[in-house]
Amino acid sequence: MPGEFDLIRRYFKDQAPIRDDVVLGIGDDGAQVKTDGSSLAITVDALVSGVHFPESTPARAVGHRSLAVNLSDVAAMGAVPQWVTLALTLPTADENWLADFCAGFFELARAHNVQLIGGDTVRGPLHVAVQAIGRLGSRTLRRDGGQVDDDVWVSGNIGDAAAGLRLFEQASSSHPLVRRFLYPTPRVNLGVSLVDWATACIDVSDGLAVDLRRLASASGCGAELALEALPLSQALSESFDMQERQYLALNGGDDYELCFCVPRARRAAFVNWCRDQNHVATRVGRLRAGDSLVLKDNDEIVTRTLSGYDHFTQEE
Amino acid sequence: MPGEFDLIRRYFKDQAPIRDDVVLGIGDDGAQVKTDGSSLAITVDALVSGVHFPESTPARAVGHRSLAVNLSDVAAMGAVPQWVTLALTLPTADENWLADFCAGFFELARAHNVQLIGGDTVRGPLHVAVQAIGRLGSRTLRRDGGQVDDDVWVSGNIGDAAAGLRLFEQASSSHPLVRRFLYPTPRVNLGVSLVDWATACIDVSDGLAVDLRRLASASGCGAELALEALPLSQALSESFDMQERQYLALNGGDDYELCFCVPRARRAAFVNWCRDQNHVATRVGRLRAGDSLVLKDNDEIVTRTLSGYDHFTQEE
Repeated sequence: MPGEFDLIRRYFKDQAPIRDDVVLGIGDDGAQVKTDGSSLAITVDALVSGVHFPESTPARAVGHRSLAVNLSDVAAMGAVPQWVTLALTLPTADENWLADFCAGFFELARAHNVQLIGGDTVRGPLHVAVQAIGRLGSRTLRRDGGQVDDDVWVSGNIGDAAAGLRLFEQASSSHPLVRRFLYPTPRVNLGVSLVDWATACIDVSDGLAVDLRRLASASGCGAELALEALPLSQALSESFDMQERQYLALNGGDDYELCFCVPRARRAAFVNWCRDQNHVATRVGRLRAGDSLVLKDNDEIVTRTLSGYDHFTQEE
Repeated sequence: MPGEFDLIRRYFKDQAPIRDDVVLGIGDDGAQVKTDGSSLAITVDALVSGVHFPESTPARAVGHRSLAVNLSDVAAMGAVPQWVTLALTLPTADENWLADFCAGFFELARAHNVQLIGGDTVRGPLHVAVQAIGRLGSRTLRRDGGQVDDDVWVSGNIGDAAAGLRLFEQASSSHPLVRRFLYPTPRVNLGVSLVDWATACIDVSDGLAVDLRRLASASGCGAELALEALPLSQALSESFDMQERQYLALNGGDDYELCFCVPRARRAAFVNWCRDQNHVATRVGRLRAGDSLVLKDNDEIVTRTLSGYDHFTQEE
């Protein structure tokens, strides 16, 4: 059975383009289309209960997450999010659940000046599909613009969300890492600013290793990650041993940080800019020739267990 | 328990508008937003297996319908559909199913020069959420523009889809009406042309009676329907007695015809225009003062059983 991405590619991506106003179709974090006077980034992401989040996830977190994952995709394209639509499928018309869902959804929407413009609410197994539209400026951040020897950067810390999910499933819901799973922060401001810096960008939704591989592959390169450089939070380091936290950082999804490339020649300027703008980003590797992902620990090539979330292969 | 539309209104529609570029938010067939140089219509509709279509519905029909219902909403706004996104949730990665789904989806997309620009495919109970974006011209067809004494028109025939669904569920899948349920025709060309004629427009998705009530209510009016004028197909008349076919025509959803208002003073010109353009439309009533829906049979007020599909009240 082919993986999810093979399936999508074969049946959806390979459809012949039929419109000149579609600049970028399926296969990036979102699409880019042109209107008469502007350029828009459009993304869609669906969350299914029991697949994308445990059934016990609080409604407020489901509302927050369903919007956050889409704002993250918009951010990864360097666009300013503007409007969202929501197709919400609920098993029962539970008003308490709906009120909490809305509290999480609209708090994040307001924080980013994003307006819900369309909704469809139907009965069925819990399912949340959100589509977000953002305004693109002079440049679009794509996955395919990276060059060999570009530095690879990642924002914030990674591995926290996967650790938080594990703790949540162990009923340790008061642990500080759980919040990082339930309420991810889409890097909207950073994404918009990165159009001046990044040659390529992707959001870390399925795990740094697999998402960096996607970026590198789209750019026709391989990549190298320096394990000792991975930005791990103090909370992660206190709760998991080295082997576990590296596993979580490489393979854990749901962080919704941005992974992006900046030309090596601009490294010093980028570091200064991050400091000036209070953006937290860590250099974790580089793009390289070839097509493989090479892991290094203090300059020595190492092997680690790599996975990556693929909805139609995970059970194989 | 409040109905679906109460729920949506309370939790989603009543959110304070926060962006000036949203001309029309939740509550019409779709939203209207402004970009720098243009105006867009945006709609979203989700189809759930076992709720919106029987579980035995062929994959090709699911693909067709999931796009058709959204193109119908775009048409009801008077917009030209351009781009769609798809969030497809499948219980298994069944390649035959996916190939058939795509055949239905993309055949209709190509017929309307519509391109799929984004997709998310995940594992879960069968669920299809489609979002469509269309280009608006000088005018938007809204529900709220009708005036007292405007003529009420409906395109095509009504009741066929509901009859087709009934026959399909009785395993009479070769009956010609079944096709009207499985493969509805969105009235895209008519909708775009109606911007020159209609004061208000809605698509008939939940049944003529309930959808006309929505249009009239948005326009601050009541409405009157002439039962003897309802356009019923020969196939419907041959298969159902008068009482049943009136019930299906008033309450059956899924026809995806357009119901719209044209000023009475333009009636003769509109009739000529329809003839010239080969559009099939039938005058079925008028808007009236007040807020009720009055049914007449040859000028005599009558009562009929009225329902209307509301996802969270149907089981009460």
